[in-house]
Amino acid sequence: MLKNDLLIRAAKGLEVERAPVWLMRQAGRILPEYKATRARAKNFIDFVKTPELACEVSIQPVDILGVDAAIIFSDILVIPEAMGLPYQMIEAKGPWFENTIKSKADVDKLKIADAGDLDYVIKALQLTKKELNNRVPLIGFAGAPWTLFAYMIEGSGSKTFSKAKQFLYTQPETAHLLLEKITQSTINYLKGQVAAGADILQLFDSWAGVLSPDMYYEFSLNYISKICDALSPLVPVTVFAKDAHYATEKISQTSCSSIGLDWTINPQSARSQAGNKTLQGNADPCLLYASEEKIIRETNQMLKAFGKNKYICNLGHGLYPDLDKEKVKFFVDLVKNYKWNS
Amino acid sequence: MLKNDLLIRAAKGLEVERAPVWLMRQAGRILPEYKATRARAKNFIDFVKTPELACEVSIQPVDILGVDAAIIFSDILVIPEAMGLPYQMIEAKGPWFENTIKSKADVDKLKIADAGDLDYVIKALQLTKKELNNRVPLIGFAGAPWTLFAYMIEGSGSKTFSKAKQFLYTQPETAHLLLEKITQSTINYLKGQVAAGADILQLFDSWAGVLSPDMYYEFSLNYISKICDALSPLVPVTVFAKDAHYATEKISQTSCSSIGLDWTINPQSARSQAGNKTLQGNADPCLLYASEEKIIRETNQMLKAFGKNKYICNLGHGLYPDLDKEKVKFFVDLVKNYKWNS
Repeated sequence: MLKNDLLIRAAKGLEVERAPVWLMRQAGRILPEYKATRARAKNFIDFVKTPELACEVSIQPVDILGVDAAIIFSDILVIPEAMGLPYQMIEAKGPWFENTIKSKADVDKLKIADAGDLDYVIKALQLTKKELNNRVPLIGFAGAPWTLFAYMIEGSGSKTFSKAKQFLYTQPETAHLLLEKITQSTINYLKGQVAAGADILQLFDSWAGVLSPDMYYEFSLNYISKICDALSPLVPVTVFAKDAHYATEKISQTSCSSIGLDWTINPQSARSQAGNKTLQGNADPCLLYASEEKIIRETNQMLKAFGKNKYICNLGHGLYPDLDKEKVKFFVDLVKNYKWNS
Repeated sequence: MLKNDLLIRAAKGLEVERAPVWLMRQAGRILPEYKATRARAKNFIDFVKTPELACEVSIQPVDILGVDAAIIFSDILVIPEAMGLPYQMIEAKGPWFENTIKSKADVDKLKIADAGDLDYVIKALQLTKKELNNRVPLIGFAGAPWTLFAYMIEGSGSKTFSKAKQFLYTQPETAHLLLEKITQSTINYLKGQVAAGADILQLFDSWAGVLSPDMYYEFSLNYISKICDALSPLVPVTVFAKDAHYATEKISQTSCSSIGLDWTINPQSARSQAGNKTLQGNADPCLLYASEEKIIRETNQMLKAFGKNKYICNLGHGLYPDLDKEKVKFFVDLVKNYKWNS
């Protein structure tokens, strides 16, 4: 049914003619078209909650950059909000929660969200799926439970997330209760995304890197694994645990289909640890500041290192807002035109 | 001459009765005594520039926590300032540079600093060395060239240091010129520190983790290696490259004596990559929020994993200011009383 199903085939480990390419934060501020749509909402939360606007910016990069997939425009923090912990997005600062979780009583007050609590995302997916008209796959996503937990305890971004980690060290049972509630909410939410048309899912564990390996396995990967088990019978699931350099092998033991890598990871070394999983990544976003000559050299080297099959080309993190759209398109074209047999 | 030379012997790979222990940011806000001294300076820069105050806070943790070394209280950004790029330390925000480096002309204007430009640190070292009366070794330090470069381009802290990285990608020759000037200044400065009494040195590469491995080797480790070559004939040098998980083996090929590790690194795996170098680290600072029981369990596990020789016990990063001083002392005592033969 999909006219371009490269991403799905690559995620499933099937043979492809060329590696698919999409970019984290492709629906974002590098596109003037995004900024124009964004300006029609009164604030970021309102933007996220308006399905027509979310649909518009989700499709823009397919039209403008020629990427092999659309990712639904949304925010990972819609889950805490649906569980009863609202937040604001403060310009140039990031997310901010008026209330944070401090005790078991706070956790008990939270509800387990279902897809109905997030109908605006579901509607945005349905609309985007329809508008895409099967040109490319539609990626759904959620934050990984640990990353959502980190914001719900800390109340905002942090260099160290020391409050969230302190909670793990001092209230481990309550931490597990909260992580379980987030996990159940996320499973409900992602099942709703699949029903609404998501062809593949990605879990973003943005703050994986602040945990030690043992803490990561106990408080993050266990829950990611549950989500993969619930969703992978339906669609492929990619796990992107930023900065969890030690975890590739353990992630490959979950039922995910693909593993996202940041730019500090050596492709060959990841391949040797990832079993039969597909790998996704991992150019440094800052490479796209460089000259075309340098972009060509480093991209070719990366593509060669990963190989054509079981590979999804992407960056190792989201696009930075001040990157030049033309350079980004240059990168996408480069990947699409790479001669795999040379 | 040193009454307690455990740190020096461990750094040199000599036999020890027990592993030495000290803590990054031990001269810092976890101690009420530090806050009292700090209150006598009109601001952070003034504090750093007053040898009597710097001496006082450098010695406090030796008296209060019983650590096996003093580290001179100073700041890594004294080098950019001595080169002609002054900064302010803004409360709750961090460092801020009014002028930043944008071009070769800006680099040309900078001077290569010598120890005389940093006489206030030299005096602080002399005073501290004298006051310590050889009870424990005195650690000198500097920021690694890449980390200083990152601040000089970016002008402040940053989650991504994308401006500094953009500079590497777009002006690599000028970047190397600046890194070379920083390196020469740092060598002059550290030689001055040794002459003033530093028994061992540490290079802090706080922002190593934002670079890809190839960029790290080219723009950071090359310069660290030069500094090690210039200083290691005089005193042992420890290299701490935070988040550069991939670099342990390459760091071990420099002339450093020891390698600092953050808490995401597995001790056994680091040992297998570090050749005959001493390892330093790597407890998660957040462990010190936990119960004594948990601190005992995890610390014992870490000490066993590293082994008694060629090991310096420390955290994987600096102490967080809100940690309880009693818990920190509990950790230090635990390490000092560990039964290595059990």
